[in-house]
Amino acid sequence: MAGKIEQNDTICALATSTGGAIAVIRISGKDSFEIMNRIFSKDILDAKPNTIHFGRIFAPSIPASQIEIVDEVLVSIFRAPHSYTGEDSVEISCHGSEYIVKRILELLIQNGCRQAEPGEFTQRAFLNGKMDLSQAEAVADLIAASNKATHKIALSQLRGDFSSELSLLREQLLKLTSLLELELDFSDHEDLEFADRTELLQLAQTIDNRIVRLAQSFETGQALKHGIPVAIVGKTNVGKSTLLNRLLKDDRAIVSDVHGTTRDTVEDTMLLNGITFRIIDTAGIRQTDDTVERIGIDRTYQAIEKAKIILWVIDENPTIAEIDDIRHRAEGKALITIWNKADIHSYPLDTKLDAIVISAKNSENIETLEHAIYSAANIPEYNENDVIVTSARHYEALSHAHQNLLRVLDGLHSSLSGDLLAEDLRLVLSDLSDITGGAITPQETLNNIFSHFCVGK
Amino acid sequence: MAGKIEQNDTICALATSTGGAIAVIRISGKDSFEIMNRIFSKDILDAKPNTIHFGRIFAPSIPASQIEIVDEVLVSIFRAPHSYTGEDSVEISCHGSEYIVKRILELLIQNGCRQAEPGEFTQRAFLNGKMDLSQAEAVADLIAASNKATHKIALSQLRGDFSSELSLLREQLLKLTSLLELELDFSDHEDLEFADRTELLQLAQTIDNRIVRLAQSFETGQALKHGIPVAIVGKTNVGKSTLLNRLLKDDRAIVSDVHGTTRDTVEDTMLLNGITFRIIDTAGIRQTDDTVERIGIDRTYQAIEKAKIILWVIDENPTIAEIDDIRHRAEGKALITIWNKADIHSYPLDTKLDAIVISAKNSENIETLEHAIYSAANIPEYNENDVIVTSARHYEALSHAHQNLLRVLDGLHSSLSGDLLAEDLRLVLSDLSDITGGAITPQETLNNIFSHFCVGK
Repeated sequence: MAGKIEQNDTICALATSTGGAIAVIRISGKDSFEIMNRIFSKDILDAKPNTIHFGRIFAPSIPASQIEIVDEVLVSIFRAPHSYTGEDSVEISCHGSEYIVKRILELLIQNGCRQAEPGEFTQRAFLNGKMDLSQAEAVADLIAASNKATHKIALSQLRGDFSSELSLLREQLLKLTSLLELELDFSDHEDLEFADRTELLQLAQTIDNRIVRLAQSFETGQALKHGIPVAIVGKTNVGKSTLLNRLLKDDRAIVSDVHGTTRDTVEDTMLLNGITFRIIDTAGIRQTDDTVERIGIDRTYQAIEKAKIILWVIDENPTIAEIDDIRHRAEGKALITIWNKADIHSYPLDTKLDAIVISAKNSENIETLEHAIYSAANIPEYNENDVIVTSARHYEALSHAHQNLLRVLDGLHSSLSGDLLAEDLRLVLSDLSDITGGAITPQETLNNIFSHFCVGK
Repeated sequence: MAGKIEQNDTICALATSTGGAIAVIRISGKDSFEIMNRIFSKDILDAKPNTIHFGRIFAPSIPASQIEIVDEVLVSIFRAPHSYTGEDSVEISCHGSEYIVKRILELLIQNGCRQAEPGEFTQRAFLNGKMDLSQAEAVADLIAASNKATHKIALSQLRGDFSSELSLLREQLLKLTSLLELELDFSDHEDLEFADRTELLQLAQTIDNRIVRLAQSFETGQALKHGIPVAIVGKTNVGKSTLLNRLLKDDRAIVSDVHGTTRDTVEDTMLLNGITFRIIDTAGIRQTDDTVERIGIDRTYQAIEKAKIILWVIDENPTIAEIDDIRHRAEGKALITIWNKADIHSYPLDTKLDAIVISAKNSENIETLEHAIYSAANIPEYNENDVIVTSARHYEALSHAHQNLLRVLDGLHSSLSGDLLAEDLRLVLSDLSDITGGAITPQETLNNIFSHFCVGK
């Protein structure tokens, strides 16, 4: 997507996937109804908003006897500004055939539509003031959300909870600015200044605390959004695969409930308290001079490096060298030692190991292990209704705002003059505005955001 | 799907695929509005038919403060009998997230819906008299149609063209029956009988001709629906792959226009005049004693067996043994010999070969080859607006009808008594009724038909 997108034309795109019983094609722009009217058997120019019309899509032709009927469809009418984009819009619900979808899109384009760019419908919703930029970004997050936690955060952001927080912060910043102006106005009354500064300091500190808390929630947001990488390591035949299946089982069952779900995408993730853990399966580790085997083991070590949590599975007491090796490799990560095969081993475990004793085969003590994994993830505490920042762009903006506020706080401490402080405050305000966007959001930022959307959204 | 499906309950299913910007969930049955009302923020009990309502799907909870909001959606209202199924129906257009779809389906089921069986919405449409059985079957064909020809046939069948043909035939059969009854009534007037029988014979013959023509269209229907298998064979390095790419190119480009199309599914098909040709690529053929190579060559021979058309690619004059071998293997199939690399070979082609000279590399003469392939397919002539039978079930029924009509014709010739002829005529009528279905369609037939549908249709 290069440069500014033309906003005067009428765009169309498939809004669903094909492969289902039905598919939905979305049209938005000032000519939506006129274009639609050229290929639809019913006159919808004066159709009431939010109504549905059954009819046929056809390819106009002279002579009329050669008219090609493409499908029998339902057409939904939305009138500006009461539509997703804020423009006149139409949705065509057709049979879910690739051929039909292609043919309808062709007809729309032949009759004046342009194929929409990724995210262009949502971008129009933003440009037409139907949502701010952080809400627009939440749309993509909402569609991608694969568990309760990320879904909740995205939906809350879409519904404007983050925007409200930011708008509250902006109000406080404006209050701070006006207090500063008051101070400037009365700057010749030396006895007044001291008291003002205390109040200003308190207010600035409150604002900064909130900004810092929001920025810190990014870590939680990242964990929720991308999941926690977990490596299962251990020698061959210690039961790594059985353990993996044991850990994944519930999750798989839930996901396969939904018709059309591709198993591949969830093959190696599990959910614990709504947090996704990405399980990286590894080859067995052992000392070897064999070159080929060496490569497999090197991959295992790379997996360990990427992981935040290491599950070390053993079924006999390890040597001191082995313990040293794994502890060395797990440095800076959480290491959970798992003594598997509790069902068949009778000899005692080395108590210094501090291992969790399980039987993957008989599902013994798996819950204890899951608790341990969740604790090891060390997810920062957060309240169900807290605003959680999940976007790197928002995190950057909040970090900038914090840096600029620190200068304001320093200035207040060191009795810097009000006009210099006002300058930094304006920067903080601008940082926060970047998150929700405004008339002045650079096209490049918009391109960055919306090019990650799918077409049709 | 075992046994009769309960039709009194309210069913729900995802009607689109997930993976797009939006997804549509469909609900049908007498409790549709009440169930929807329990989880939707707006009261839709008295909503007008064919209207759209924006609101939130939520999971009801006590206390209300813990209500879980699932999504902001559009809800479409359809009231019996003016809906797809003929029942009260709702469509929820939600964000295209697997999590959201799963959650909404869970909520619908918790509040009284049942997950729909494959094709159950269409089955209800049939049982409620919204379409006959052949129209219902066309729904699945329409969704699966991947080219203009199959699309046109399925849509024409859905719109009832085949049904009209059958109803015309039924009328004629009923006329024939009433003429027979007339004959029976006047059977004591010996002088009248002869004239009647001539008229009866003519009418029976007309009906039979039409039934035979419909049955014969099944071959065309099969070719259109399943495509014509074509094997490209030849030694290694004669340019088979280049030729394959040359033949496939246009098609691929068109298909990839549609967002979300999986290339895999079209990898080896091409369209010529709306007919799909399924290209089977093969390993090179040569005499060998190597066991492994032998397996590859055996596979090639299997491919040849499955094909209806063989494209034999050569770049030098073949030996007589080679010619004999390929002609032997291509027996009963169409064999097209292709002299490739016209761009580099200067020595003359053996004129006895009757080969098409091309350069796959330079795209020379590809069009001639395409014409030859299309001719070799030997698609029976058919008029654009002919009814084409594509279902084996319909073909069977038509063949039965034809057999029973032949007995009627024989009987008319041999002056069989009218009451015996009437018996056979009833069988013909029943054969044709099987196609469109009726109150007495056995559940097993319905199960057979609808179990091949996708869920949500």
